[in-house]
Amino acid sequence: MKIFSYKTVEAKDAGEGSSKLKVRWLITKEMGAPNFAMRVFEMEPGGHSPLHTHPWEHEVFVLKGEGVVVGEGEQRTVTHGDVVFIAPNELHQFKNNGAVAFMFVCLVPIRDK
Amino acid sequence: MKIFSYKTVEAKDAGEGSSKLKVRWLITKEMGAPNFAMRVFEMEPGGHSPLHTHPWEHEVFVLKGEGVVVGEGEQRTVTHGDVVFIAPNELHQFKNNGAVAFMFVCLVPIRDK
Repeated sequence: MKIFSYKTVEAKDAGEGSSKLKVRWLITKEMGAPNFAMRVFEMEPGGHSPLHTHPWEHEVFVLKGEGVVVGEGEQRTVTHGDVVFIAPNELHQFKNNGAVAFMFVCLVPIRDK
Repeated sequence: MKIFSYKTVEAKDAGEGSSKLKVRWLITKEMGAPNFAMRVFEMEPGGHSPLHTHPWEHEVFVLKGEGVVVGEGEQRTVTHGDVVFIAPNELHQFKNNGAVAFMFVCLVPIRDK
C-alpha cells in the first residue's frame, strides 16, 4: 500500500503541444500498477493541452477551476465534480480560459505491457 | 466523449460488508471504457468499507473529508489530495472516523474482458 499527497510528486512540464501545463505522475507502472496510471494535471490560465488523438482512452475527474474540453465539433465547459470520458481515438483538447488554475485527475492505461 | 457531473449518477449502497457508504459508478465498461472503471465513494461519519482482499488493484484520489486507510499492520489518515495505491491482494479497509463526509475517487480494472 502506498499513501502520499499528490504535492510530494514533482510537477513536470506536460511536453510538446501543451502550454502552461504541468503533470504529476502519481501511480505508475514503476510503482507496481498493473493496468492503468493516475496523473494529476494543473493548467494555468491561458494554458492548453495538445489538440490530438491517440489510441488510448482518458478517464478524467475535475478537481478545481474551470476548463474547456474541445472535441470533434463540440466544446464544453467543465468544473469541479465533472467527469470526462474520452474514448480511444477521439479528438480532444483541454483549455483554461478562466482566471484560476484548472486541475484534474486523468488516468490512462499502461500501454507497454 | 462523455461529460457529466458525478452528481447526475445515482448513488447506490456499496453493498455487503460496508456501512454508511455509497458508490457512484461514473465510467464503466457499459459506457465503452476498455480497461478500467471510475467510481466515486461517499462515506458518512462512522462508515466503513469491508476489510478484505481481492486480486485487483485500487487507485484512489481523496476529494474531501478525512478517512483512515487500514492495511496489514498499519493505518494511515488521509485527506484531500492524498493518493492511495492498493496493489492486488493487499488487505485494505477505508473508515470515516471524522465528523464530515469522506469522499474519494477509486478506480479498478475492468475484469470481465
